[in-house]
Amino acid sequence: MDRRSFIRSAGVLGAGAAATTLAAPAVAQGNITWRMVTTWPKNFPGLGVGAQRLADRITAASGGRLTVQVFSAGELVPPLQSLDAVIDGTAEMSHGAAYYWQNKSPALSFFTGVPYGMTTPELTAWVRYLGGQEIWDEVYDQFGVQGFLSGNTGTQTGGWFRNEINSLEDVKGVRFRTPGLGGRVWEKLGATVTNMAAGEIFQALQSGTLDAAEFVGPYNDLALGFHQVAKNYYMPSFVESGLATELVVDKKKYQELPADLQAIIRDVSQAEYDQVSADFIANDPRALRTLVNDHGVIVRNFPDDVMEAGAKASVEVVEELRNSDDPLVKKTAESFIEALNLVRTRTENIDTPYVRARQQFLKYD
Amino acid sequence: MDRRSFIRSAGVLGAGAAATTLAAPAVAQGNITWRMVTTWPKNFPGLGVGAQRLADRITAASGGRLTVQVFSAGELVPPLQSLDAVIDGTAEMSHGAAYYWQNKSPALSFFTGVPYGMTTPELTAWVRYLGGQEIWDEVYDQFGVQGFLSGNTGTQTGGWFRNEINSLEDVKGVRFRTPGLGGRVWEKLGATVTNMAAGEIFQALQSGTLDAAEFVGPYNDLALGFHQVAKNYYMPSFVESGLATELVVDKKKYQELPADLQAIIRDVSQAEYDQVSADFIANDPRALRTLVNDHGVIVRNFPDDVMEAGAKASVEVVEELRNSDDPLVKKTAESFIEALNLVRTRTENIDTPYVRARQQFLKYD
Repeated sequence: MDRRSFIRSAGVLGAGAAATTLAAPAVAQGNITWRMVTTWPKNFPGLGVGAQRLADRITAASGGRLTVQVFSAGELVPPLQSLDAVIDGTAEMSHGAAYYWQNKSPALSFFTGVPYGMTTPELTAWVRYLGGQEIWDEVYDQFGVQGFLSGNTGTQTGGWFRNEINSLEDVKGVRFRTPGLGGRVWEKLGATVTNMAAGEIFQALQSGTLDAAEFVGPYNDLALGFHQVAKNYYMPSFVESGLATELVVDKKKYQELPADLQAIIRDVSQAEYDQVSADFIANDPRALRTLVNDHGVIVRNFPDDVMEAGAKASVEVVEELRNSDDPLVKKTAESFIEALNLVRTRTENIDTPYVRARQQFLKYD
Repeated sequence: MDRRSFIRSAGVLGAGAAATTLAAPAVAQGNITWRMVTTWPKNFPGLGVGAQRLADRITAASGGRLTVQVFSAGELVPPLQSLDAVIDGTAEMSHGAAYYWQNKSPALSFFTGVPYGMTTPELTAWVRYLGGQEIWDEVYDQFGVQGFLSGNTGTQTGGWFRNEINSLEDVKGVRFRTPGLGGRVWEKLGATVTNMAAGEIFQALQSGTLDAAEFVGPYNDLALGFHQVAKNYYMPSFVESGLATELVVDKKKYQELPADLQAIIRDVSQAEYDQVSADFIANDPRALRTLVNDHGVIVRNFPDDVMEAGAKASVEVVEELRNSDDPLVKKTAESFIEALNLVRTRTENIDTPYVRARQQFLKYD
């Protein structure tokens, strides 16, 4: 039986179908199998791998009482229907990014990341201690689901540019692949923004249809080969300062689980927020070293006038959300901005001066 | 029965004594009660609270099959005998900081933090992806225990100074309370370093026995009242750029647990690494705001010549460990330095330019 046939069978058989190999006492209490659909290709570094690992960890920590079966993008439903699959009962869980569902509520952007937004540790501080989770719950209650943070790419890279960007002037007219709210910021800076799927970017860059493209960061970008056609690797991305992933569960089914299984889902998701973040912090620089040493990539920082105009444009984009007619979008934006204004005082007075001094003064042979 | 009598009774009765309130099926399989000793005072913000929460989360995720009882510093054993309590079987778990056990192996400093070392995300990248955990396991195998990261304070503050530090010259002769390897760095800068317990610092600062003292950061420092006698709050701490806490378990007893309980201990510890970090990122700036707005504290950054001399002295201190005769200490130092040299390329090319630009250009009204 090939994997796809197995998947269809499992879908028909439903919960409990995969439980036969487990220890007797647990089976006697009735095991459950949940389906997790994801927005990521199978084995996609960091994120797809993380979704599979999260599922496996829930299965392991529950001793198989809750077995989670993973379906990569397109296996059960198309990637951008993952949330709908949970809402309509096709799956019990979705692993993706909240900002994919902006069409359901623009408030959801904040739980992934907005332009010039929070870093990985700042986002978890907002969600866990400064009211973020409670508002997220309110947003998702409208759809009968519950979200948990499940990973973060950290601050991403700004993009691959065929030509150098030495001033804001150089951005004008650049045909740039960058999606979402970040794309709107780059449009305000004068770029000609387009979106296209990951698999189409390379050829568009090569043929000259695109002048620039951004995807995630070195760890993911290396495999896509952009360095073969655009040598200028600009960083950081000021429109994706941290991209959080989410685990979404069917809230009613979640609440019907025994309390220990609910705790396991929550705890493993949080453990994975750390694990995925660590994966990028460890493997981005490995990939970056390969890109620079083996492929002649040139690492560049955007000039200050681009970073400054980017901040102004980002505020405009976020202020639009703050001025939304939807009170919950407004409330989310206000909570986010208040939390950012608070946590950045620590980042700027303690964390940044440290890493800046280390960069300047610390040298090991 | 007062709490201490109860503790002694529980010690005599041993495992399983506290299991009577749990659901029948789990009890039937035999519940376990483990004792966790900690190095923290009861309800100590961030760290003591985190130890209790970690214990409660293990109890909850295991449905009470593994119930963890917490003993704050001094309740069962003195705080600095927590690791020994696990080694000699008095307790099954210890929650503390690995660098408290430098006398057992100087290698252990690296798993908490060394001067001019890693930030919170960098440390987890080293431990989880760049060989750190494997070396840590080797170190702790010598004592029959296993360590897991369980929290991080983030980059700490540099200290409370009665007088301003405007240049390296001003450090000479300053009577400064700062313990451990960090203290050795400050000695190299010319300070007169002493150590004393947290409860003694305030009076020593007030009486003039001390000119300066550092403890953790705003969240912990606010309660100790240093701001009443020293208004200059210097940051960052370049000798404690991130202080990781650990959960230590008796390795043999851990390995004898069913696989699901092992997974739960591992997963909850990792979730807590994120939770404790978030607690500090959220609550340090709240406390800092109170210190500045309500108590007239002046936030200052150390001058560049202090930061530069600090880097040089820190390298000397860490190089001593790299030159250790103990091959495991040497190996730990080499792995740490190699990982730091790798991950800092991401921090410096991507993360720092972002937060620096945000600091300079982003403003929400």
